Amino acid sequence: MQFYKNGFRGGNPDIKPAAPNRRNRGINEPLPEKVDVLIAGTGPAGLCLAAQLSQFPEIDTMIIERMPSNIIKGKADGINTRTMEMFQAFGFADKVKRETYWVNQTAFWMPDPKNPEHIKRVGRVQDVADDSSEMPHILINQARMHELFLEIMKNSPSRLEPDYGWEVVNVTVDPTTDDHPVTVTLKDVTGVYWWATRTVRANYVVGCDGARSAVRTSIGGQLHGDAAHQAWGVMDILANTDFPDVRQKCLISSAKEGNVLILPREGGYIFRMYVELDKLRPDEKAAERKFTQDDMIAAANRIIKPYTIDVKEVVWWSIYDIGHSITDRFDDVPEGEDRDPRVFTAGDACHTHSPKAGQGMNVSMQDTFNLGWKLVHVLQGRADASLLRTYSKERLTEAKRLVETDHKWARVMSAPTTEAERNGTEEPRIIRTFKENLEFTGGNAVKYDPSRLTGAGTHQALASKLEIGRRFHSAPVVRVSDAKQMQLGHAAEADARWRIYAFAGKADSSNAGSAIHKLADWLETNPSSPVVKHTREGEDIDAVIDFRAVFQQTFDQLAYENLPSLLKPKTGKLGLIDFEKVFCVDHKGAGDIFDMRGIDRDRGCMVVVRPDQYVAHVLPLDGFADLSSFFAGILR
Amino acid sequence: MQFYKNGFRGGNPDIKPAAPNRRNRGINEPLPEKVDVLIAGTGPAGLCLAAQLSQFPEIDTMIIERMPSNIIKGKADGINTRTMEMFQAFGFADKVKRETYWVNQTAFWMPDPKNPEHIKRVGRVQDVADDSSEMPHILINQARMHELFLEIMKNSPSRLEPDYGWEVVNVTVDPTTDDHPVTVTLKDVTGVYWWATRTVRANYVVGCDGARSAVRTSIGGQLHGDAAHQAWGVMDILANTDFPDVRQKCLISSAKEGNVLILPREGGYIFRMYVELDKLRPDEKAAERKFTQDDMIAAANRIIKPYTIDVKEVVWWSIYDIGHSITDRFDDVPEGEDRDPRVFTAGDACHTHSPKAGQGMNVSMQDTFNLGWKLVHVLQGRADASLLRTYSKERLTEAKRLVETDHKWARVMSAPTTEAERNGTEEPRIIRTFKENLEFTGGNAVKYDPSRLTGAGTHQALASKLEIGRRFHSAPVVRVSDAKQMQLGHAAEADARWRIYAFAGKADSSNAGSAIHKLADWLETNPSSPVVKHTREGEDIDAVIDFRAVFQQTFDQLAYENLPSLLKPKTGKLGLIDFEKVFCVDHKGAGDIFDMRGIDRDRGCMVVVRPDQYVAHVLPLDGFADLSSFFAGILR
Repeated sequence: MQFYKNGFRGGNPDIKPAAPNRRNRGINEPLPEKVDVLIAGTGPAGLCLAAQLSQFPEIDTMIIERMPSNIIKGKADGINTRTMEMFQAFGFADKVKRETYWVNQTAFWMPDPKNPEHIKRVGRVQDVADDSSEMPHILINQARMHELFLEIMKNSPSRLEPDYGWEVVNVTVDPTTDDHPVTVTLKDVTGVYWWATRTVRANYVVGCDGARSAVRTSIGGQLHGDAAHQAWGVMDILANTDFPDVRQKCLISSAKEGNVLILPREGGYIFRMYVELDKLRPDEKAAERKFTQDDMIAAANRIIKPYTIDVKEVVWWSIYDIGHSITDRFDDVPEGEDRDPRVFTAGDACHTHSPKAGQGMNVSMQDTFNLGWKLVHVLQGRADASLLRTYSKERLTEAKRLVETDHKWARVMSAPTTEAERNGTEEPRIIRTFKENLEFTGGNAVKYDPSRLTGAGTHQALASKLEIGRRFHSAPVVRVSDAKQMQLGHAAEADARWRIYAFAGKADSSNAGSAIHKLADWLETNPSSPVVKHTREGEDIDAVIDFRAVFQQTFDQLAYENLPSLLKPKTGKLGLIDFEKVFCVDHKGAGDIFDMRGIDRDRGCMVVVRPDQYVAHVLPLDGFADLSSFFAGILR
Repeated sequence: MQFYKNGFRGGNPDIKPAAPNRRNRGINEPLPEKVDVLIAGTGPAGLCLAAQLSQFPEIDTMIIERMPSNIIKGKADGINTRTMEMFQAFGFADKVKRETYWVNQTAFWMPDPKNPEHIKRVGRVQDVADDSSEMPHILINQARMHELFLEIMKNSPSRLEPDYGWEVVNVTVDPTTDDHPVTVTLKDVTGVYWWATRTVRANYVVGCDGARSAVRTSIGGQLHGDAAHQAWGVMDILANTDFPDVRQKCLISSAKEGNVLILPREGGYIFRMYVELDKLRPDEKAAERKFTQDDMIAAANRIIKPYTIDVKEVVWWSIYDIGHSITDRFDDVPEGEDRDPRVFTAGDACHTHSPKAGQGMNVSMQDTFNLGWKLVHVLQGRADASLLRTYSKERLTEAKRLVETDHKWARVMSAPTTEAERNGTEEPRIIRTFKENLEFTGGNAVKYDPSRLTGAGTHQALASKLEIGRRFHSAPVVRVSDAKQMQLGHAAEADARWRIYAFAGKADSSNAGSAIHKLADWLETNPSSPVVKHTREGEDIDAVIDFRAVFQQTFDQLAYENLPSLLKPKTGKLGLIDFEKVFCVDHKGAGDIFDMRGIDRDRGCMVVVRPDQYVAHVLPLDGFADLSSFFAGILR
């Protein structure tokens, strides 16, 4: 964590200096007339975007919410490893790790063949495979996760806070202007202003307003999909039980009473149960059945026999019959029309599905983490607005994959067990499918197709396990300046900057004339270097592209005095040297990053990483022209 | 981290529910007339005690400070591994780890034999030896550390905050009463109340008011010791330099210009330099020399030749000539008098020494961490007031060792280098001594003598590396209920509770009739069990003594249903089962706690740990009578 770059400032380093131009958010301050970005909805998608944009006080961001405050309980609770990697970039992964439940193992229970009325443990699966991520898979009350984002926003230079109690009535786009062409009509839902309506003009609007999104409806989007015809109940409870695996994630299939999922939660006592209730008629909604919390508790007790649950407090519960659905596009540009988008949707506003694979909150945040840096680039004038066309394309593909996988998983979960499974002669299909899905449910299977943002795989072999289009998979390194063991991926922050990691060849210890030296010097001084071309006068040399290097020697075999100046740049108001750009292999047994990520030991390579942590390109250390043209396709 | 034990409560789990009896701390609220404990001084010693006492709202605690607010910069900055282990118990170690500088390596520089005017690196030492602690040695601005304690206090049930702007004028003890016998006269130093004086009566007073302590003076204490006759400068600076090790801790000896210490600090840019200035005459004070910050910068530049330092901002600086000194006793009971103490001193109020071994802040906090739980026990009526006599005894021994070690270290640091050292034919004495001192400087050499608090070593061989009298050295385990990899030591919180860790013998998987089962059942039900005897009606079964077990099997080889009820106790308002009492060996290569801590694999053992994390006793699993009599010597 770096701070004091512009001089000493006491206190909590997470509270950034406030920007002078920030909006006054005191009581009874009027809504602004114009903003750069208006976000509708303070769920995970909206907050993740707001938290990212709030770091840029030069961008006017507004986030509205129809509810009068943050939620207190309920809703989603699963955070996969990929999302945790993103939280690391926002700076609150450590806090989340400390106070949440970690899903280390998933246990599977099925009818005991000797006594099918009783359940029996049939298997366990390590939930996060070794080296699939440096992060745990965790479970946390969604409300608390919102708080962590709200805190980031409030501590940001723009001191961003939501405007609660306003809902979107309508969104219109004026295609004839580029000056705040989107008009949003908002209505006071809580009556503080006598249910008044207000209009706000924006350059961009992002609808994170859920499955009934008014933003989506305004731009003509529709959710298409299938209903589930199956009622489920979900409850967060404080309860005692003799069921021995209650502090592990469990998938439980009974012989005749249906299925239950157990998800232990933060704090060591509370847990969530998803309980299968009745099948529904094709035209029926779960709500019509008027299930109560007692129905759910009774069903759970029937399913987990011979064990029982004694509920002390029902914290939250809900009955649902969510199927899966998706919109045709995630922005306001219809198929075949050639213009840049102005309105976007994200999260449940454009894809819904069953909550039981724990994906919803994750995919929603990943939607806006994909959009965030693109909006920043365009609003900062660093990239052409056409960059925003890639959002719908990239995320729609992922959403489709999510809905398909979810659909399959739902079928596997509801399928009755077979004789062979119950006898133990065959590994149950649910366990096999669960294992096959692990990379997907961890959020680490996402792969963006080749595009202007994702280079061709010509040189992929130089970093065989850092696949272009997939997330940059972190690995252990040691920071040379202070010999600190750390994760290379943790060098990245949610700051909309690109990163180039240069992995040095075996013989290269940054001796004069080495490949690393040449690359660094070219990047720093050559007129065709993307660093030179895309960094503005007066900006820090790493303001847009952050160059770092990783060596194969251990920290004590490298001499700081031999490093090229781009690896010890002077930045900030005081021009202080940045000592956190240079890394080397770990010398204490945590693993060798070159081996772990398939880096060519002889030749080394460059790995270009997008601001949202996805690998954009792999190039040889002397791939100057390719690097230059790659960035020219994105940045001005 | 456990919460929701008494029912769900949203929001930040670090903010505890406020106690109804807490003092109103609004503006212009008068000072209380009577308190249980009055702490003078909001330095590390005072805040560490206040943070601990604040968790007990039934104890009226007041903490005063003569300054008008917390400091912003300067003073101490070293936190050793032992203190970090204590921070873990307070719950903020993760936060500290994230935002601080980690001392991984210490580099040694000496005159280059080829060119003695220039310095040259002669060695490096890994600063925290493998498995000396699970915690890093870190450096942080003292002011920020204060903030972290202040936050703990403010979030505690008593919502404790300091009363700033009051200084102690005098402390008197009335030996004829037990009802708030200590009268403290306070003076308003900031003039808010026209420099008024007020008196507060207290049951106990703790002087953490620094080297010029008014509390110490009031009880007739005096600091005895030697002056240093050597001026040193210290500065926290933002600076550029070509000195390659500026982000490592460095001890630099020049041929003729004196010595420098470099201590990199939080945030990646700032660092501290201790710079040796002139020798002083026997009667001279450093302040008389009128050194300036420019003198210090010039001296530093002379010492580190051929390198130079270009200072951009001096954040804080000071000139000092601290020697070392100590008082005869740390409480108000003179040698030979037989009564229980009422007034204590801690930290600089009773021992001062050079800052260069980075011990001061640590030893000060360890003083009050030793005192804190004893005060809690006595004020809760769980222990006789004579328990408080052990404070001065235990900490005086440690303070003496500190002053001696510091004295030796200062001599080694100032000694000129020898020919053999410079030629590399002999390892420099400074490096040898540094290595020898590592356990001490890490804070892990503390060993309390046998006493009523620290049992005899009869059964020490059962846990050969968990030495009685030394801090409980944590090791990796897996929590059985959720298969989470963690540190056993992190089960302990700063909650004034005792812990018994029962290590099971090889064959013992908590099968009926096993040693673990017998011990647990005896502890839970036998009239002579310390749990039964010392826990009050209506209290949780683990309110005073927290019993936990560690097995040699891996988590998947143990059945929760076979565990004795004391290992899955029902506690809190809702009587919810606690699933965090049972551990087993790590199955993922982090190390085997039985091997690492020398636990007898066949017989197992019990390790009794004090509330301040020191090993109090090692006993066989059937050492019922010994356990009973040990606790009878302390608890009522």
